[in-house]
Amino acid sequence: MLSKNQVRFINSLKRKKIRKSEGLFLAEGEKLILDLLNSDIQLDKIFSLTEFEYPESGKVQQISERELRSISSLTTPNTMLAIFHVPETKPVQKKGLALALDEINDPGNLGTIIRLCDWFAIPQIICSKNTVDCYNPKVVQSSMGSLARVQINYLDLAEHLKQEERTIYGTFMEGQSLYKTSFAEDGVLVMGNEANGISDEIRSCIDKELGIPRFGSQNQTESLNVAMATAIFLSEMRR
Amino acid sequence: MLSKNQVRFINSLKRKKIRKSEGLFLAEGEKLILDLLNSDIQLDKIFSLTEFEYPESGKVQQISERELRSISSLTTPNTMLAIFHVPETKPVQKKGLALALDEINDPGNLGTIIRLCDWFAIPQIICSKNTVDCYNPKVVQSSMGSLARVQINYLDLAEHLKQEERTIYGTFMEGQSLYKTSFAEDGVLVMGNEANGISDEIRSCIDKELGIPRFGSQNQTESLNVAMATAIFLSEMRR
Repeated sequence: MLSKNQVRFINSLKRKKIRKSEGLFLAEGEKLILDLLNSDIQLDKIFSLTEFEYPESGKVQQISERELRSISSLTTPNTMLAIFHVPETKPVQKKGLALALDEINDPGNLGTIIRLCDWFAIPQIICSKNTVDCYNPKVVQSSMGSLARVQINYLDLAEHLKQEERTIYGTFMEGQSLYKTSFAEDGVLVMGNEANGISDEIRSCIDKELGIPRFGSQNQTESLNVAMATAIFLSEMRR
Repeated sequence: MLSKNQVRFINSLKRKKIRKSEGLFLAEGEKLILDLLNSDIQLDKIFSLTEFEYPESGKVQQISERELRSISSLTTPNTMLAIFHVPETKPVQKKGLALALDEINDPGNLGTIIRLCDWFAIPQIICSKNTVDCYNPKVVQSSMGSLARVQINYLDLAEHLKQEERTIYGTFMEGQSLYKTSFAEDGVLVMGNEANGISDEIRSCIDKELGIPRFGSQNQTESLNVAMATAIFLSEMRR
């Protein structure tokens, strides 16, 4: 049985401000929840339609389908919803490859990008402060557990890039072909906003401007979606 | 002024069966409509909030915002909606590169894949009959005009592949690394269903089973979304 206060509290975690002040976020679906339980991320509580074994007592509360619908963000709720603690922010790593995001707005894009980084073993994502929150329920759902395996930092991106010692690559429509670039072992790849690309302030921090060449002479395709472009860049950097 | 019959007819074109019997499909937004007007695809009629110049008379009808909302598929309707004629199906090309889709269900995925083919100059997509219709309004919107530049055929995919003379590549989780493959000039790349991958019947037609290697030892990422995987494959085939 869920109390009114619980319903109100859980729903309040759909808002960034409350997630930040409470240090908690939501995840839905057994598969995703098991994936997060299997990581360093700490559980607060599970709400489940069915019985669920968890070693620590008091962590699982059984609820009805109707109650699940009252707290779910999904149009077709799964069988479980859980509250997890937002992990502590670790310092940005100084070596290896990293992805930097300059104002990515779409939660689905960020979720997909987190999955891509996990697949290609890019251990960290550095986000501008105006990039969508990675604990937004839609990001959590679309990242499919990869969220637990990729370190994500939010910071003043221009300030950070000015102090960055690695080679900074940026993606631009008219940049040099990525196929003709040999990537440094220690590098940061910057991807820009869905509509406007990389901002001028960030652009001034970039060492090499790269792009994905269009093929075919008559080609008028406007641009690739940022998640597609990220897939192609990370594949090329890791191949 | 839109008649009730017009509203009913336009809305009926959101259904595949009616699109097929009428040979018509819908597109929304000035940018997309201009892109389609600029192609071989024939216009039936434009419904626009504002005046719009078109050389042939009787092709543009001015409507109100309320009327546009009554026929739009978008949550935030643009300023224009148009009806176009489904182009005649051309025979499948026999040379060069092609993409084949085995039961892609998600309209957004198909739209993205059409854009990717346009970008990478893959001139044709061969779809299994149970792949989502490329004139589905969500596919049309997400393909962003690339629909006019890529030839799409729906057919019995297994039957077709049995007669295909090009090298047939298929994507599988455990296939040989695509980075270690040299692709033939004449080739067909098969991508499988979002949940189940390539069906057994289609698998038996495939010459080479390829995959995108996972990087990192602890990597547990389940799989890449089919549109991501297509981006990575097409980039690798064209680089």
